[in-house]
Amino acid sequence: MSAINLAMKLASFSEYWQPRTVGKFNGYDLMVVKVKGEFVWHKHDDTDDFFLVLEGRLTIRMREASVVVGPGEMFVVPRGAEHQPVAEEEAHILLIEPTGTPNTGDARTAAVRREA
Amino acid sequence: MSAINLAMKLASFSEYWQPRTVGKFNGYDLMVVKVKGEFVWHKHDDTDDFFLVLEGRLTIRMREASVVVGPGEMFVVPRGAEHQPVAEEEAHILLIEPTGTPNTGDARTAAVRREA
Repeated sequence: MSAINLAMKLASFSEYWQPRTVGKFNGYDLMVVKVKGEFVWHKHDDTDDFFLVLEGRLTIRMREASVVVGPGEMFVVPRGAEHQPVAEEEAHILLIEPTGTPNTGDARTAAVRREA
Repeated sequence: MSAINLAMKLASFSEYWQPRTVGKFNGYDLMVVKVKGEFVWHKHDDTDDFFLVLEGRLTIRMREASVVVGPGEMFVVPRGAEHQPVAEEEAHILLIEPTGTPNTGDARTAAVRREA
């Protein structure tokens, strides 16, 4: 049993928009992801969507507003709300989602879930 | 709608072991807490216990092992496992618990849940 170092986990891969599971919590996956550029617009009807920015800056576009999330900042997209994560420069994020949640909101286009 | 800045929330209070709710996620409270010294031994039978250290260093003593969690590190105490959080110097932690979970494992001794 040991602590999970998020920076070390992030250093172990380089692909963007491919979350890596680093821990489990009550049926949720604790994941780190590197992002850059525009992700697809999507929504999750069954879960809120948790973002904590560890490094860099993430813009979360929603239909009614956009939120800029910087390092040490957190944002929760309410379930059902369409959103598009965007990062001009590389950013590192902690995500928490119920195990099995497709990152695009659609199992057909979702990233394969891997561990880091 | 705006991002939640964890350092700003932490700067708004000074008491130790008094978690402040800063957001909600799927029926969970997202909380920040300042800790220093020894907390009580306790356990949560109904939930895992999520710790992410934002600043400082937290030792989580368990019956079989101890884990040291530094800045940018995360640890999940499995449900039912007795544990005692300890910090020699002040540390700042992000906690995630189902809304209503007593921080001591016992509603009679738990900190009153407040927002920050």
